Amino acid sequence: MNFKIYRSELLLALTKVNKAVSSNSPLPVLSGIKFDVTNDSLILTGSDSNITIQTTIKAKEDILEIYEKGSVVLGSRLISEIVRKMESDFITLEIIDGALTKIKGNDSTFNLNGYKPMEYPKIELKEVGEHFKINSDILKTIISQTIFATSKVEIRPIFTGVNFVAKDKLLSATATDSYRLAKKTIELNQDIKFNITIPYKSLSDITSIIEKVEDIDVYVSDRKVLFISNQLKIQTRLIDGTYPDVNRLIPETYLYELNIETKDLLSAIDRASLLASDGNSIIKLTMSEQTVLITSNSQEMGSVKEILTACEFKGEPLGISFNSRYVSEAIKSIGSSSVSIYFNGDMNPFIIKDKKDKSIIQLVLPVKTYN
Amino acid sequence: MNFKIYRSELLLALTKVNKAVSSNSPLPVLSGIKFDVTNDSLILTGSDSNITIQTTIKAKEDILEIYEKGSVVLGSRLISEIVRKMESDFITLEIIDGALTKIKGNDSTFNLNGYKPMEYPKIELKEVGEHFKINSDILKTIISQTIFATSKVEIRPIFTGVNFVAKDKLLSATATDSYRLAKKTIELNQDIKFNITIPYKSLSDITSIIEKVEDIDVYVSDRKVLFISNQLKIQTRLIDGTYPDVNRLIPETYLYELNIETKDLLSAIDRASLLASDGNSIIKLTMSEQTVLITSNSQEMGSVKEILTACEFKGEPLGISFNSRYVSEAIKSIGSSSVSIYFNGDMNPFIIKDKKDKSIIQLVLPVKTYN
Repeated sequence: MNFKIYRSELLLALTKVNKAVSSNSPLPVLSGIKFDVTNDSLILTGSDSNITIQTTIKAKEDILEIYEKGSVVLGSRLISEIVRKMESDFITLEIIDGALTKIKGNDSTFNLNGYKPMEYPKIELKEVGEHFKINSDILKTIISQTIFATSKVEIRPIFTGVNFVAKDKLLSATATDSYRLAKKTIELNQDIKFNITIPYKSLSDITSIIEKVEDIDVYVSDRKVLFISNQLKIQTRLIDGTYPDVNRLIPETYLYELNIETKDLLSAIDRASLLASDGNSIIKLTMSEQTVLITSNSQEMGSVKEILTACEFKGEPLGISFNSRYVSEAIKSIGSSSVSIYFNGDMNPFIIKDKKDKSIIQLVLPVKTYN
Repeated sequence: MNFKIYRSELLLALTKVNKAVSSNSPLPVLSGIKFDVTNDSLILTGSDSNITIQTTIKAKEDILEIYEKGSVVLGSRLISEIVRKMESDFITLEIIDGALTKIKGNDSTFNLNGYKPMEYPKIELKEVGEHFKINSDILKTIISQTIFATSKVEIRPIFTGVNFVAKDKLLSATATDSYRLAKKTIELNQDIKFNITIPYKSLSDITSIIEKVEDIDVYVSDRKVLFISNQLKIQTRLIDGTYPDVNRLIPETYLYELNIETKDLLSAIDRASLLASDGNSIIKLTMSEQTVLITSNSQEMGSVKEILTACEFKGEPLGISFNSRYVSEAIKSIGSSSVSIYFNGDMNPFIIKDKKDKSIIQLVLPVKTYN
């Protein structure tokens, strides 16, 4: 292996592939990035065995010049820092003995002990299974509107991911931690069918790697999903098991309705949450057609009362308590200037929606309080 | 206590006073900020019993209107967050019962459980002892050029602070952790005498609180120092004990001299340090009148060689090893575009200076290596 590359191009590729690498992998070679140099390309692969990210740089004048084919695995933190801190525009990487690799630019020369390529697990990135195309912005929105509602505890692993279901030319994404639920639905051009659950970390990596507006090819098979965009491939394993049908939790009728400016509601919730030290405070919304109040009490710290004015409530007077963080995350995910909240009583789940955007629905369970 | 105040003015004052407050104080009342309202001022005090910060806001139209005198202690994190997150330009603070304090602005009302003022320790901020004036920028420079060399371990507490000695119309500041030493000397207008050691944390707080170019009044007494600047008072305890005379460690003659561009040297050291995972790597400087090299080796990771060109070395060939972090911190503290390093052999301390600035001297001990 021997090639010369435009340093900032390599750095950008390393940054992407790095997202898949875990520094405390049980298999030491997986803490590295695999460099594969072919006749016409440099292929970089990073993986933690749950998610694999691969990017390809094509040989091209002023970007990549290949002198000799070959492969090596280099420690991901170290090679990234070296490439970042070198000062020359171009650097050369050359295997000088076994897995010992020379990295050279201007007056700096590193000789790094790498791993031999055969130590790296065989990872296949095959374009198989159900295929559809999706715009990267839409994919990012689906993820950001659901991912926060996944469960952070491993008791029921299936709830630590987002469930994606395709049928009847619709794609729905659902996440719940059993205290709240987020559901996003979009139309698909193709009539394909699948029901899969993608781990939280993979979705979070995908969001941070995929770029501006571009089409992404998605291949869904039984045990994995492959996303392809330009020179980038991201493959993730799926969470085993069947995602329960949680649609029945979403009420279709309601007795009370609150229409409110998002900004006012969020800042009132934010202040009312100050009386809990961990941000998970229980706050109470007290509504009538005349006044809407948010209150919170802490025996130790004191109390707070917020009067909400930019709002309109329809229904009999109602008081309902909830975890302030669940409601503010739900409202923020909708991302509109006003929201509508629909209630069925102080002990029933309530839903939060944007009147103008039917694709997203947020559900939160209230909390029982005794004051 | 009852007053109305311009919110951003109060927030600014709280931010300053907060620096002295420790969230895990053994005395719970010290996790609060003391509000004292007199006929014409609001005085805020924060303290962790080592350092005390006090700021005064004078009653003035459109800033502070006082309706009733009084005192209370309010939890520092909570009151600061409340004042930060309220949205009105002005807020009112009023004791409504004992230490229960109402904070009100627009549609938000908080009732906070405070502490009664008599629970707060009596802290006197008296202008006694040796007095001198110093420009805030000069004080900040003295601190930043020495503080990093203090010891981070408590084995000899005196070394965890910076030693300030005034005599013969000179003020010198010295810090050492016994592996390196920093010494800054400035001229004083007054012929005063003291020898005190100020704790690291107090100096670090002072640096972050004192503002732009202004004169600071300093009062040095046996057990404490008081800094006064405008409406702000900062008082710190001193570290007990006698600071050893470390001046004899600084060599006055030398056998070798390296003059070098700061930027080149720092980035070469930075890259050579990559082969240590904790940033405390041992690197070797190999110098002759023809070539100057930095090298580093890690059995596990590999090796690095950096050729330095923008430099000039005078003396017989010399190789010397040192902790890379000590040298880069010393060079950065000097803050000039080139530095001169003076050696007396591979096992003797070496000193780093700016040829144009005699006020600052940095000393580093080399490390024994066997390769």
